Amino acid sequence: MPQVGPLKLKAQLLCGEELAIGPGKADLLDAIQAEGSISGAGRKLGMSYRRTWLLVDAMNRCWAEPLVEATAGGGQHKGARVTAAGLQILAAYRALEAAIAEAAQSDAFKTLTDALLPEPRASQHEP
Amino acid sequence: MPQVGPLKLKAQLLCGEELAIGPGKADLLDAIQAEGSISGAGRKLGMSYRRTWLLVDAMNRCWAEPLVEATAGGGQHKGARVTAAGLQILAAYRALEAAIAEAAQSDAFKTLTDALLPEPRASQHEP
Repeated sequence: MPQVGPLKLKAQLLCGEELAIGPGKADLLDAIQAEGSISGAGRKLGMSYRRTWLLVDAMNRCWAEPLVEATAGGGQHKGARVTAAGLQILAAYRALEAAIAEAAQSDAFKTLTDALLPEPRASQHEP
Repeated sequence: MPQVGPLKLKAQLLCGEELAIGPGKADLLDAIQAEGSISGAGRKLGMSYRRTWLLVDAMNRCWAEPLVEATAGGGQHKGARVTAAGLQILAAYRALEAAIAEAAQSDAFKTLTDALLPEPRASQHEP
């Protein structure tokens, strides 16, 4: 997720009610590409295999073509890779993140950061 | 929160670990301005008084000046308003939201929406 100093930005694309891609799913595509398997990507991101698989399944159902496919071989530790369509979606999502992060560097952002404290003051008592 | 077709965007400003402003807190400032009280704003947004008060307290501790102040009067139903500083922060936050929403209208966004299905396909069986 792009973070510009104290500013956190999040972009999510929805397919109906389903999240087609967002920061977590983009990171998952990166991890599958790096690890060569869904299980390896899940371990890298600290997620269960089941949760990782469900995220991949959701992504794959949201786009004209699947973003992740099984690689040759099989068995319990079979591999997976990001498809050509998946790489295109991932690149476009990262470009979108970069565009909004750049646009955030605005006069409005300066107004906000000039008034923002580095740490909150202590709380008053509740009424 | 700005929504451009299937794209949801979220901007959050952090003060240390505390959320200084984000979509919910900006809507709360709007509601306080409209309703003239913290309790009225909470009712409008479907939140308990306690939760609403805690959000206002957190906001007030994150900025050089408080964003919300009590108005003259008192008792259980005392009023509140957004301060001049609060109106400035709220306007800057809305301008930041508008800037990122505009920047999102990019070639990358077109690549994404061209490949995005209107509804997800049915799930495969789990492995």
